[in-house]
Amino acid sequence: MSAFLGYLNEKNLSLFTDYYELTMCAAYFDNQNFEPATFDLFIRRLPQNRSYFLFAGLEEALNYLQNIKFTEEQLCYLEKQGFQAGFLDYLRNFRFRGEVWAVPEGTVAFPNEPLLRITAPIIEAQLVETFLLNSINLQTMIATKASRVVEAAQGRAVIEFGLRREPGVDAGMKVARSSYIAGCRGTSNVLAGMVYGIPVFGTMAHSFIMSYPREIDAFRAFLKTFPNKTTLLIDTYDDIAGAEKAAVVAKELAVKGICLGGVRIDSGDLVESSRKIRGILDTQGLQYVKVFASGDLDEYKITELLDKSAPIDSFGVGTKMGTSADRPYLDVIYKLCETQNADKSFSPIMKLSKDKNTLPGRKQVYRFRNDDGTFKKDVITLADEPSEGEAMLVKVMDKGKLMSSLPSLEEIRGFAAKNIAQLPQKYKTVINAPLYPVELSEKLQKLVKVLKQQIAEKEHL
Amino acid sequence: MSAFLGYLNEKNLSLFTDYYELTMCAAYFDNQNFEPATFDLFIRRLPQNRSYFLFAGLEEALNYLQNIKFTEEQLCYLEKQGFQAGFLDYLRNFRFRGEVWAVPEGTVAFPNEPLLRITAPIIEAQLVETFLLNSINLQTMIATKASRVVEAAQGRAVIEFGLRREPGVDAGMKVARSSYIAGCRGTSNVLAGMVYGIPVFGTMAHSFIMSYPREIDAFRAFLKTFPNKTTLLIDTYDDIAGAEKAAVVAKELAVKGICLGGVRIDSGDLVESSRKIRGILDTQGLQYVKVFASGDLDEYKITELLDKSAPIDSFGVGTKMGTSADRPYLDVIYKLCETQNADKSFSPIMKLSKDKNTLPGRKQVYRFRNDDGTFKKDVITLADEPSEGEAMLVKVMDKGKLMSSLPSLEEIRGFAAKNIAQLPQKYKTVINAPLYPVELSEKLQKLVKVLKQQIAEKEHL
Repeated sequence: MSAFLGYLNEKNLSLFTDYYELTMCAAYFDNQNFEPATFDLFIRRLPQNRSYFLFAGLEEALNYLQNIKFTEEQLCYLEKQGFQAGFLDYLRNFRFRGEVWAVPEGTVAFPNEPLLRITAPIIEAQLVETFLLNSINLQTMIATKASRVVEAAQGRAVIEFGLRREPGVDAGMKVARSSYIAGCRGTSNVLAGMVYGIPVFGTMAHSFIMSYPREIDAFRAFLKTFPNKTTLLIDTYDDIAGAEKAAVVAKELAVKGICLGGVRIDSGDLVESSRKIRGILDTQGLQYVKVFASGDLDEYKITELLDKSAPIDSFGVGTKMGTSADRPYLDVIYKLCETQNADKSFSPIMKLSKDKNTLPGRKQVYRFRNDDGTFKKDVITLADEPSEGEAMLVKVMDKGKLMSSLPSLEEIRGFAAKNIAQLPQKYKTVINAPLYPVELSEKLQKLVKVLKQQIAEKEHL
Repeated sequence: MSAFLGYLNEKNLSLFTDYYELTMCAAYFDNQNFEPATFDLFIRRLPQNRSYFLFAGLEEALNYLQNIKFTEEQLCYLEKQGFQAGFLDYLRNFRFRGEVWAVPEGTVAFPNEPLLRITAPIIEAQLVETFLLNSINLQTMIATKASRVVEAAQGRAVIEFGLRREPGVDAGMKVARSSYIAGCRGTSNVLAGMVYGIPVFGTMAHSFIMSYPREIDAFRAFLKTFPNKTTLLIDTYDDIAGAEKAAVVAKELAVKGICLGGVRIDSGDLVESSRKIRGILDTQGLQYVKVFASGDLDEYKITELLDKSAPIDSFGVGTKMGTSADRPYLDVIYKLCETQNADKSFSPIMKLSKDKNTLPGRKQVYRFRNDDGTFKKDVITLADEPSEGEAMLVKVMDKGKLMSSLPSLEEIRGFAAKNIAQLPQKYKTVINAPLYPVELSEKLQKLVKVLKQQIAEKEHL
């Protein structure tokens, strides 16, 4: 493995950051700016065909914040990059001691809603930006994508099969975890199975079939080792011929009282193929043998298959889910929204770049429900405004310490399932879902207006 | 950090694999199949708008092969998953002891050409599939994408700026390395700077500007710490007003004999904006202050900017390069192409699924050149066929040991630059490049035909 993998542990990711975080912090240090500031981590907009986000990645973000520190080796590297001794001494004792508010992992969320809100001396709050964005971006992107795939499958099992083309080792682990949170039944990733306790699944590859003189020899060889509930891959040469051979070995097993689990198809026209295969199996009295489909699947393809009533029992979904192929990133950003003045009062801050405005001040998000308990709308308010909705942001860290223990993966998965169930169906269609209403409180709207005016005057625009 | 990061070191990635690799190997073990087999790792097709691949990831692949083994903890997990004692004993002593041929990192390559060719007892060759695909997929995808971005910039510096939205920690490191191989001048990723020796770059964020009462105060505060060659971010409120303030501080610096490095714009219409800003700077005698552009850039956008003669000196390219956003995966596959028979003879193997055929036999790739030394065409042959071209696949590992030390990152980068320079210009246009000719030798074509016939007979198609 490359040398860097030694760095991948909780105590050594402090340099996994953009260089400018360090130069800005050095400038803050030189200018003796140690006042608290507040940053919001949020997603600017919904990608095409997404109508909600499923928030994931909080556990890692909080672990990072608890553990970030600088080693002598790292400080030595920074010294060679020209950082001054005073700042390096500051980093030597660096810990994150701020306050964090966040929505729980597994929350259904929307654009512009703060997902994390961090208040800390500005150097501490700034330095953690890059890692937090990197971590939340990937995990929320995948949980969101996987949630769409699971919805499209309408209760049929979805197994995460994308490890080979997921972008790197960390992604391979995080995709397994995030898609499990989103409702996938399991993963092909054995390490994720071991580390996270996620159920692992797999069948066999074409190479296994090809390594035997005949396809049916390969089936028998595999069943010798794994007789129970095995799924046979039947499309190495021809899916229909493969199904007939699978039926032969299924009946050989049946004589011994063993049930073949299923057959997998991974290529060709899955509608036509699954119908013919189901027909072959049913004709031979093998109604209990399931049809498992894989190969280039995503929420769009699964919707199409089920719209055409393809008799498929479960899906292995790989590359397109594991890379969020139609949109492999989120517009996740981390923006300053408040600074503290010399007189200890707070100033709300906003950015006014073209098309990239941000919301000023320390904020809260409130959720309102319909009479049937489903989500009706959200309102973003200033943090100290009263509201009748449910407050979404919860204080999770104080002075750099966790407020309480974190939920287990199963708890997060359950919370996500509940959240998604409470999102009205119209927001869960694969395409053309309406926009969920997210409003700004009157007070926040007024503040935006006032600040725009002030900035225009101050900066001579 | 999540528990799994403890596993990210060279000795513990053996379970970073699809479950089916292990079940297939268990079946091979039970059936006493320890014969050698050969697998090709290759990319099935070019994604849209790609006309070549820049191969990267070999160093990590070889390190993985040298180090893979199973710990007692991992074996204990596998035992709980139902694997039998005999197979677990086999894994306890598992090492990769095969032979590997590969094209060097930094090679320009094309679809269906073996990039790695592995010959080993089938269990060893099979078990490493998932990791090898995961590793080569990401690194080759990014090197290819970054090479396109660097070409589009026509000699202007490109800095890799995507860390915050790259998919995870491992991707953040591999993107920095792969894009540096492809010709990027550096990265924003400080850890990649430290681990790989890649030059690191950065400017400042909007939050830094916003944390001061006035934009110009922020500029002065930053320049106090970093007076030399600093690049000021000027679009927090208004790019033109920002450029005028940058000119003010540039002249304050000039009095002290210090040169402002440049200004960065990150939003709006970069053509119009860069022209106006260049005008402001030039009018004030600040011809030496560079214009640095960032914000949603990729090879398409850079081509458009330069086609319109936008006066931009260098580019910070982030998310779209770091995620290969228009195609976030490659069709990289790992296919059995040869097995050994009981009588020690070898049988070429091919797969015949719909639209997914593979090339049988142990193969070599030969490259032919035009008279000016540029690449003319490649020919895929059987490994033992003579050819007049340059053999692309080199033996890099024998009995699990490296044949020689691996090239340094700078050497790989130089080799890539030479390779790309030798690819004729017509194959390097951002869109609509012609297809580079890759032929199959007559012998290989004949073998494909014979095997298709044999499979059809054998499997009753």
